[in-house]
This record gives sequence, C-alpha cells and structure tokens, in this order.
Amino acid sequence: MLLTGTILIKNNRQIVELNYGAVNLFVIVVLSGFRASSFCFLVNCGVYFLPLSCTFKASENNLRRLAALFTVFIIALCSAAAEPAPNLMPLPSNVQPGTGELVIDTSFTVSLAGSKDYRVQHAIERFLDNLRRQTGMPPLYMKLTNSAQATLVVQADHASKEVQELGEDESYSLEINTRGARLRAVTPLGIMRGLQTLLQLVVTTSSGFAVPAVTIRDQPRFPWRGLMIDVSRHFIPIDVLKRNLDGMAALKLNVFHWHLSDDQGFRVESRKFPKLHEMGSDGLYYTQDQVRELIAYARERGIRVVAEFDMPGHSTAWFVGYPKLASAPGPYQIQRKWGIFDPAMNPAQEETYKFLDKFINEMASLFPDKYFHIGGDEVNGKQWDKNPEIQAFMRAHGFKNNQDLQAYFNERVQKIVSKHGKIMIGWDEVLHTDLPKDTVVQSWRGQASLAQAARQGYRGLLSYGYYLDLMWPASRHYPVDPMSDAAANSSPDEAQRILGGEACMWSEYVSPENIDSRIWPRMAAIAERLWSPQNVADTKSMYERLETTSRWLDWFGLTHHSSYTPMLRRIAGSDDIAALRMLADLVEPVKDYTREETAPVEPTSLAPLNRLVDAVRPESATARHFAAMVDLISSNPADPVIRAQVRASLTNWTANQASLEPVESSSFLLKEVAPLSAALSRIASTGMQAMDYIDRGNRPPDSWVADQTLLLQDAQKPQAQLLLVIVPSVQKLVQTAATQSAVPVQK
Amino acid sequence: MLLTGTILIKNNRQIVELNYGAVNLFVIVVLSGFRASSFCFLVNCGVYFLPLSCTFKASENNLRRLAALFTVFIIALCSAAAEPAPNLMPLPSNVQPGTGELVIDTSFTVSLAGSKDYRVQHAIERFLDNLRRQTGMPPLYMKLTNSAQATLVVQADHASKEVQELGEDESYSLEINTRGARLRAVTPLGIMRGLQTLLQLVVTTSSGFAVPAVTIRDQPRFPWRGLMIDVSRHFIPIDVLKRNLDGMAALKLNVFHWHLSDDQGFRVESRKFPKLHEMGSDGLYYTQDQVRELIAYARERGIRVVAEFDMPGHSTAWFVGYPKLASAPGPYQIQRKWGIFDPAMNPAQEETYKFLDKFINEMASLFPDKYFHIGGDEVNGKQWDKNPEIQAFMRAHGFKNNQDLQAYFNERVQKIVSKHGKIMIGWDEVLHTDLPKDTVVQSWRGQASLAQAARQGYRGLLSYGYYLDLMWPASRHYPVDPMSDAAANSSPDEAQRILGGEACMWSEYVSPENIDSRIWPRMAAIAERLWSPQNVADTKSMYERLETTSRWLDWFGLTHHSSYTPMLRRIAGSDDIAALRMLADLVEPVKDYTREETAPVEPTSLAPLNRLVDAVRPESATARHFAAMVDLISSNPADPVIRAQVRASLTNWTANQASLEPVESSSFLLKEVAPLSAALSRIASTGMQAMDYIDRGNRPPDSWVADQTLLLQDAQKPQAQLLLVIVPSVQKLVQTAATQSAVPVQK
Repeated sequence: MLLTGTILIKNNRQIVELNYGAVNLFVIVVLSGFRASSFCFLVNCGVYFLPLSCTFKASENNLRRLAALFTVFIIALCSAAAEPAPNLMPLPSNVQPGTGELVIDTSFTVSLAGSKDYRVQHAIERFLDNLRRQTGMPPLYMKLTNSAQATLVVQADHASKEVQELGEDESYSLEINTRGARLRAVTPLGIMRGLQTLLQLVVTTSSGFAVPAVTIRDQPRFPWRGLMIDVSRHFIPIDVLKRNLDGMAALKLNVFHWHLSDDQGFRVESRKFPKLHEMGSDGLYYTQDQVRELIAYARERGIRVVAEFDMPGHSTAWFVGYPKLASAPGPYQIQRKWGIFDPAMNPAQEETYKFLDKFINEMASLFPDKYFHIGGDEVNGKQWDKNPEIQAFMRAHGFKNNQDLQAYFNERVQKIVSKHGKIMIGWDEVLHTDLPKDTVVQSWRGQASLAQAARQGYRGLLSYGYYLDLMWPASRHYPVDPMSDAAANSSPDEAQRILGGEACMWSEYVSPENIDSRIWPRMAAIAERLWSPQNVADTKSMYERLETTSRWLDWFGLTHHSSYTPMLRRIAGSDDIAALRMLADLVEPVKDYTREETAPVEPTSLAPLNRLVDAVRPESATARHFAAMVDLISSNPADPVIRAQVRASLTNWTANQASLEPVESSSFLLKEVAPLSAALSRIASTGMQAMDYIDRGNRPPDSWVADQTLLLQDAQKPQAQLLLVIVPSVQKLVQTAATQSAVPVQK
Repeated sequence: MLLTGTILIKNNRQIVELNYGAVNLFVIVVLSGFRASSFCFLVNCGVYFLPLSCTFKASENNLRRLAALFTVFIIALCSAAAEPAPNLMPLPSNVQPGTGELVIDTSFTVSLAGSKDYRVQHAIERFLDNLRRQTGMPPLYMKLTNSAQATLVVQADHASKEVQELGEDESYSLEINTRGARLRAVTPLGIMRGLQTLLQLVVTTSSGFAVPAVTIRDQPRFPWRGLMIDVSRHFIPIDVLKRNLDGMAALKLNVFHWHLSDDQGFRVESRKFPKLHEMGSDGLYYTQDQVRELIAYARERGIRVVAEFDMPGHSTAWFVGYPKLASAPGPYQIQRKWGIFDPAMNPAQEETYKFLDKFINEMASLFPDKYFHIGGDEVNGKQWDKNPEIQAFMRAHGFKNNQDLQAYFNERVQKIVSKHGKIMIGWDEVLHTDLPKDTVVQSWRGQASLAQAARQGYRGLLSYGYYLDLMWPASRHYPVDPMSDAAANSSPDEAQRILGGEACMWSEYVSPENIDSRIWPRMAAIAERLWSPQNVADTKSMYERLETTSRWLDWFGLTHHSSYTPMLRRIAGSDDIAALRMLADLVEPVKDYTREETAPVEPTSLAPLNRLVDAVRPESATARHFAAMVDLISSNPADPVIRAQVRASLTNWTANQASLEPVESSSFLLKEVAPLSAALSRIASTGMQAMDYIDRGNRPPDSWVADQTLLLQDAQKPQAQLLLVIVPSVQKLVQTAATQSAVPVQK
C-alpha cells in the first residue's frame, strides 16, 4: 500500500491531508512562512527521509494511530523547513538540499568558463533578462563578466553541434551555496536546461531575492521531447510560434514538430513549386526567410525543428496548384472542413516521385534537422479505388490492398528522403517491414503500436495520450508514459528505441488568440513526464507546481491567461464580465472528438472562434479545487472550515444566474450560454440543499435524492459545446448527504 | 448656471444624478439594456435636443421640480435610446446619429477610392487586423478589395507629404448607414483618424457586431498634439515605444517628442561622434537603423517624430566622451541622480559650435521632421560662473548675466539648426527676442508664458499641466487648456500661434515595465483636450469613456493593466495577492515632486523600480468610484443601495489587514507596506462607525469627531511614498455623520 502525503493550503491555513487506503485523517495546521510546494517537492524528490511507500499489516485503528503519528512528524518537518522551497517543473532527477541561500541582488554577475559557444552566451543573456524581470532590476545590473569572482560560473565543456542532434547530452549539474553558484554541463544544451532550473529556484524572502543552497544533478529521461503544432487547419503566425518556443524552452522541451501541410493549407513558400503556397494557403504561409528565422530562434533555445509534409493523404492543399499530383483529375480547392478526405497523391505515376524529389530536395536544405516527417496517416484510399490506372498498377505489382500500395509509396519516398540526407519519420501507418531500420514511427495509436515498432527494430515516439486538442485535464495526460502498458515489458534494446514523445496541437479549433491556452499549462505536465524520472508521478504535486509554472509562463510572454479576459469581454460585449467569468471558470469545452458531433452547424475553418467554448480553459482549476474540498467533506463532513468554503462557493454560483440573465440578451454570443447559466444556478442550489442535510446530520428523503440525481444527469449534458464540470462534485455532495448514518428526514 | 446630467451605473441599477448648483436630485432607474455611455455621449456631443446650459431664476423648490421633470425626461430618453451607444475618445467635433445600424460580419470588406497612398493601404490593413481581433474573425475574412460594393469605401483625396508636416489636414467625414460606410478625407492622415473612430464605434448587439448609423464630421482643434518620452533617465526600448505609438495613434495624437539626451544618458548612435553613445549610454542606446525604423513606424500611424537633444545644460552624458565640450575640465561620468546639475556646454569656445554643427548635421538627416528640439532648460550657470575664460568672454560681449550668455548660445545654435534645414524648438527658457519668429517655444511654465510668446510672434506649445510624472489624476489634466487662463484673451493671430500641447513623461521613476501605466490611460484625457472642441469638458463623461478606452488600449498591446498583477506578485513573493491588491487599488504614488522629498534613500537610476509605489496606478479608480458613492450619501444619507455598497467596501477594507499582516514578513518588498495596510483598516473602521451614526440618524459626540479627524489627518501622510486616497471620502462620511440634523448621541 502507498502512503502519500499532500498539503492543501487556503490562505494561511494549511490542511494536511493523509490518505492511507480508505483511511483519511486531516489536521489543520497554522504554519505561516511555509509553502505547500516545499513538502510536495521534498517528497517527490525522495531526498528526504520519509519513506514514500511502506507495507503495513495493521487494523484500521492502528493505521489511524500511525497516520496521526506521521502527521505530527510532517508538522515537525514543516516547521523545520521554514525557507520557501523551489517550485521546479519538470522536477530534476536528483536534488540535494543544502544549507542557507544565495542572495540575488544587484551584485549578481555571471562568468563563462569552458566553451564560449555563442549559444551559451545568448542563453545567459536571456537568463539575465528574465532574472532582471523577475526581480525588477534595471538593465545596468546583472551582467556577463570576465571575473572569476562572478556569482554564477557557467561552464560548458564543448561547443554544440552545428545542427542540433537527437541524443546530444542535455545533462547538467547545478551547485548553489551561500557564496555562489556553479552550472556545469557537457554541452550548451545542458547549460540552457540548467539556467531554466536556476530561474525557477528564485524566491522572495524577508530580506531580498534568493535561491536556496542546493545541489542538482539532472538529465532527461527521454532524448525526444516534443510539441507538434498544426499550422495548416488554422495558420499560426511566427510570433505566436516564437512565444511557444520560449515556453518549450522553459519546460526543457527539445523538438518543435511543425505540421506544415494538410488538406486545409500548404504553409511554406516553395521556390521550386510556387503554386503550392500561392494557391494552397489563402496567402497565409511562411516565407523561407521566416522559416530560417524560426529555426534559428529554436536553435538558440536548444530546440530542433522537424518539418512535416503530410503525404500521400491529407494533401488537398497541394493539389489546388498541382492537380496532376492527385489520383483524380480535380480541380481542387482548399478544404474548409475537418476530417479525412478522399484526395491522395498518385503513387502509380513517376511524375509524383519526380515532383517529390525536387520538393524534398528544396525542403531538406531549408530544414537542417536530420529528421524529415512525411506524415503518412489516414489515407482512405477512395481515389485509388476509383482510378483504373492505379488499379492496373496495383495488379501489375501484385499489391493486395491499398496498404501495400501505400507501403510502396512510402518506400519510394523514403529513398528520396534518404537521398537528400534525411531520416524519415511517419505516423503509425508507415510501419512496414520493408522500411530501413532507422525510420522513426510516431504513434498516435498507443504504446502497443510503439512497442511493436521497437520489437521490429524501429525507433518510435509516443503521441497517443498527448493530444492537446482533446481537451483532457493535465491529470489524464500526466500518467501517460511511453514505457508503460504494452511498452512496459520492452527489452533494454527495445526500450532504447523508444525515443520519447510529442504532444500534438491539432488546430481545428485554435487561433493565434487561444492556441496558447490550448497548449499551456497542460503541456508542462507532459514535459515533466518526458524529462523527469518515471517515479515522479504525484498528481497533486504536479498541479501545485503547474499553477505556479502557468502564471510564470504567462508573465514571460505566453498569453494563455492574459487572453481570457479580453475574449470574455468580447462575448459579453461589455467590460463588466464578473458574472460571465464566474460561469466560464466552471465550464470546459466538450472532450475528445465530440466538438464535431455536438456542433450546431458543420464546423469549418471559416467559422469565427469567438464563442465561449473557444475562450474557456480546457481544464477548470476552480472546479478542481472545489472537487478537492468536496472530497474532504465526503470523508469528514464535520470539518467547519471546508464546509464554510464549499457553502460560500455554492452560494455565489446559485446567485450568479440573477446577475447574468439580465445581460444575456445584450450580446448574440451570450445567447447560447443562457441554459448553461441556468443549469449552474440550479445545481449549485442542489449542492446547497445537500450541504443543509449534511450540516443537520439528516439523511434526505429518497425522492429528493432521485430528483436531484436526474437533475444532475441533465446538467451533465453538453450545452453550447460546454460541460459544467462541477456536476460530479455536486453529485458527490448529494451522495454524501444520502449515505449519512443519521436518520433520514421524514417527508 | 450649468445644468448637467450624469449617470452612474452599478450592475443593472442605474442611478441618474442631476446637479443644479447646490441642488442635487437622485433617481434610481432600473433600465436594462441601456448604457451609461450613450447618454453622456449624446449630451456631450450636443446633438440631442437637451439644452446643455440654461439660465434659471427660480426658488430652490422650483428648481427641485424642474430637476424632477428633467429626470423624467431623461428616463424617457434613455428608454428610447435602447441601442448600445458609441464610446468615442476623443469625442468628434460633430456627430449626427442616424437610424439603425450597419452589421459587421464576415462579409465586411473595404475598398479604396482616390489616392492609393501606401500609408492608407497599411492603415486599412491595421484597421482590419484590429477589427478581426475585436470580433474574433479568422484572417480569411475582412479584406481590402477592389469592389465598389465594399462595406466600407475609403477615399483620400491626395497622397500625403513625403515627410509629415505640421498643420497637414487631418479632418475626415464618416457616414454610416445600414447598407455601408464611407470614410472620406483630404489626406491619408484624416483616413487614419477616421478609421480609429470607426473601430471605436463597433458594438456587440443581440444579433451580432455592428456600428450605429451616424454621420461624423471631425477635425482636430490643435495641429500639434504630442507626447514626450524621456528615454535618458531610464532607457526605454524600441518595442515599448512602438506600443506607445500605437496608443497615440488610437487617440489621434500626432507628435512623438523623443527626449534623447540628458545628464543620465545619451541614447542615439552618432557615427560622427561615437563616444557620445559609446561612453554616454551604458550601452543602452538606439542604433540609427532603429531610429529610422521607429520613424517609419510613426509615419505609418500619422505621427511626426521630433528629436530633442538638450543643451547647453542637462548634458553631462555628452561630456563623458567629449569633456572638452563642457565649461569645466572634467572628467565626467554618467549622472545617476536626479535634479539640475552644474555641467553645461561651453558657449564661449568656437569648438562647441563646430561640434554642434557636425552633430546637428548628422541628426538633421537622421530625423526628417522639420522641427528640431534643442532643450535649453534649467541651466544653473555654476560652471560658467567659475570659468575665467567664459567670464572674460561675457565681459567682452557685454553680457550682463548668464541669461544673456545662454541667449547668445541659442542664437548660435539656432543658426546651425536653420542651416541644416530645421526649425528650432526649445523650452520656455529659449524665448528671447533675438530669435527668428519661426522658433517654437514649449512651455512648462504655463499659459502666461505661452501667451507672452504668442504676443511676441512666436509659436508655442503647452506642456505645463500635462506632466504625467507628477501623478495627477486625469481630472486635473483634463481641464488644462492651451487657450485658457492667461491665453484666453489672445487675439486671433496670437491664438493661431498656439499650436497645441504635449504631455511629458519624464522618466525618473519609469521602466519598460511600468511606463505604460504612467502614460495610460491619463494620456487619453489630454489627447481629448487637444483634439475635441473646447466645450467637451464633462469630467464624468471623460472618466466613463476613459475606462473603456483604457481596457481597449491594453487589449491592443499596451501593458498598463496587464503589468499590474505580475508586479504585485513579485512584491508579495507569491501568487496569492488578493489582500495586497485590495490595498494597492486604494493607494497612489505621492504627487508632484514629493517622491524625491519622501525617498528613504537618495533616488538614483540604479534603484530597482520594484516597490509598491512603482506598481500602483497614478490614479485609483476604486477610490474615485468610492468617492462618488460617498458624495451621494453626503447629499442623500437615506439611499439604501448606495449605503449598502459603501458598507460592503468599508467592511472588506477593515478586514484586509487581517489577511495581509500574516504574510507581510515573507517578502522584503512588503515590509514598507505594513503601516499603510494598518492605516487602511483603521480608517475603514472609522468609516464604518460614521456609517453607523448615519444609519441610526444620530450625531456622533464631538470627541469622536475630533479623534477621528486626527486619525484621518495622520492617515493622509505618505507611507512608503504612497497616499491612501480614500481618506478624504472617509473624512466626508465623518462630516456627514457630524452635521446631521438629528440629535447627537450622549456619551
């Protein structure tokens, strides 16, 4: 059994919660000056003396006593750990706390030993910019010097490779004592990662800014930690990509996978085939100069850029300018809808390969990374089935089905990719034993597919479980592990071939305005999964650090927080959005692929993304905090503090409809929200009634429970493509009331 | 006497307040769907049938009846005006409302008639970007087309001048009906101004986005409407200047005055005298390419860029690299303190003029504007007094005093400026009858000085009353008028020479992080003064429109709102800033030049600007709203709605100290705030006691009044260089309680 400790804080009041199986014990501790994060951090790092898992054989009473003892122990520990503790994300692999702290003031300087690689110098300058910003220091301070007496000495053993390679050493060690800090790494990449850690260590104390004395030795668990952004379905401008690269760098991610073409748009300037971008992009494409600029920007941050040109399917946008590439005559138009479409390249004609040879030649020199992604997913084969020449070709080659034909196409393309000096990557579907073993398979199907590829000798990446567009909570992405499930029993050799993972931001419903909020902060949880040791897996600790990380990312340029208010104002048609925000904070967009299914009209790339479903966060922090409080009430209905908090929230939500209803008619964007607002007030009122039963210690009549359960089932249905995510918590309150040991109320 | 009507809104409850001299009458009207802004707008525009000023001879009773009648009238008007109304700032000179509205949806297009000046095209593209952002439309829509059927037809009669000139026509007419809109202007400048008006007209309705049918004919009152930014005392990077130029363009300002050199820094690359920027800037300067980039950016927005190089005083930074220019041998260092310093150029040596000739030659070609600012302010003359050669020179020329010497210097410099094709501007001090009449005087001394210059035939600008660094409320800047006071009686010719005004952002206490909050939104009130007709002068209307304008500016790139929260988090050393924010919302930095006087240590350019005084807004909107409610209570203590609101605020503030105190010791930046927080709770408690007396209708004992008055006097003193700005309102509550007609409470 696992004994876990977590701390919830409300203002200055800290509630220590211990769970041992079904046993829960709560102790409210007033401990000012101690931060929740420190405890979780220490427990997670496993560097303190608390055993994280222990096996007991004991009666429930003994367990209660043990838990009580453990609590006292924690309190003592908390009192001792009076210093604010670091809030690191991803958690490093090894952290040894030291004694005291290093003051960060105007005298802070950095010197550079070892390699003078310009990337290290630029990384230090960015670090100093951020440090100045974090501490509010003027630009006259915090300089890179030549002095051996600098506060921070940075040493990279070697310069970096001309083009960043897969598997380059990213490890670093960071030693901080009260006199100074030393950051050492084999490569500039390790220095970049270590500088991000150092920045996260900065805290405010009663005497000034400081970093705690600590020794950190850190390296990534996986060498490929990526984020894919689909810029085809909605075009995402360069500056938006740049701020997301900054976010990636802050979370130690190292691959930006640029999904550059699809049915809905071809997004790169091609000088050899200019009709690709001229006719396939609505004028929304990156010039080659912009591509080079972005690659340089990524390189400075230790991030590889892998280009994807999806083929033979997902390629309608190519055919607008070059219909002869397709398997049916055309003409073609840029696709405005979402889904899998018929157009596919013609694998039976030599012109296709001649075209791709020239095209890949051009792109292979534009994108310096060793890996080149050819997509290869979701070909429905309908154009192939209907084309007599292709059918004849298949018979001539003895292909049994379209899979064989696509495998032939892939082999041909692989040879072209290889001829131009690149290694091919493709989605699951490309996996075929005739491909060379250096091919990389990106799995959207799951660990089984990944493990199978590894068994066959191919390298693979996990993307299944990391689809950010599915609007899952971070807690659902976080436990997804490339080495778990079907991959858990891989041999060491096979495990070696599992390179890591990539989160995917498919862009059916994102715009420059809301893409950050679809990627962040959830991406940070995936980044931790791919960097930190496998046993870093405490969801509560993750969430605590995620909230801090999220605010920090927004401050440093991302807009996932800051775009929320303006979007709500636009929906309200007014600056007074208190009531709308209260509702918006409690809803989430529908999950998985139900946004298509629940759409009021067929969704297209032409639809404005200005509805509430486009503004609200994929995951409601308010609902999560409420659920945590309700969990406490379910296990200990007598707790007065939590009870008061739950009541206060329910009271506000019950009253919210009265504020929102009068203005609902003033904006067309509010109309669809009306039923949702009414439902919120209704279920909050249910929750209040349940609290009344709990407070009085009376069980409600069965009929009430049945009525409310129906009401809640109704409230759980999507409205305006939104889910009212406090419903399960209210359901839990109803259940808690209904299962009290006290006498039920008589009608 | 002036009869004015204003409306205050709280949620859906609208309180119509009428003032007629000392008579006040309040009617609470519940009118959903009507916006306060519309009434103020209508009244201010003077296009409705309500007489704005009327003379009455009547008893107080009659006046009360009249006011009551008027109120009913307004209510009827309000009910009729059900459509959301525009929120224009600055208010146009003539607005004729039409019937209905023009729908703004995905079919919106623009076509261009008349001049195809690239500036008009770019202005339209920026307009469309903003319109798409405001409405959340994808980039596939809202295009510039060639169709005569476009929703908006834009016509500029002529192209613009190669270099924007003072006095170029900026007028425009904007006609909107239900079928389309037409924007017409003589020059591209007028088009730019009109597009900003159109953008401000967009509202959200129950059926979609729209602009109301309207005919606007508009032109500026003054041809010179500027903002000066001092980039010497603190360096302000190009991107920060750019977003401020965007803000200027939104408010129809047309001159950016770039204060480029001073004792604390020389900020432009000089290729002829590279030691100026190399030694005089700490490496913080603009390259000539950056200067050209900024000028082009400004030009695209219809903004002239006027460079200022302050001389012969305020010039220490020049002497670091070129000590021979000075009147004492040196060596010199960049000045880190604030104030007036001794170093001044040597007006008695020819080398000075040779240097300036070469330098001004270089800068005159870098800065294309016709006007060139030579500063000329605040020479203390001490170096001149001590230099025997200068004294001999003065005797030889028969100069009686340093003013004569400076006049000689100015004449020499003026000739150089003129030789290089420019017209000279200087601060008040340059005014001297020997200067040519085209010289422009910028007055920091006031309208008297301005009027005097105009009488002498010089043109002038007002900056007195527009110093943003003095932390005045917008309501104090707003009535300052270049044509008022001593300038009110100018002859038409003299009035013609009063070109307008410039707000000044002196940068002793601004950084890239907080400069926006020091300029905006107050700058918008000054912009309205300089653009709108003189009779646009209703402060309450200004504030209502200012609040909307302010949020809008922040959304479109300025950071005066968005930088507030991160700065407070840094001060708190925590993400939980609710209590700190409640306090911060109620304080303002000390006013005028008292920041120097009250400084705990001598302020310098090396000091971090990370204290609460650097984060809080120059003007507290919360305090202003509270004061308005207290005013209502003073005149009508029986009003239950307002009373409840005042009580709610006071209750929160009384309790705030209990939340803030426990965390005060956790951050060194909170320490100085502690006494302020205690004072807030104390005076809020005083306010609550006063409310109790008012509610009970009992007059408090004199001793209580005396005690509280002392307490309030104490609370009015600056703490941590901050003022608790609700003190006067609490004082008013105490007075209201003390002057009730009811019987005083017995001790």
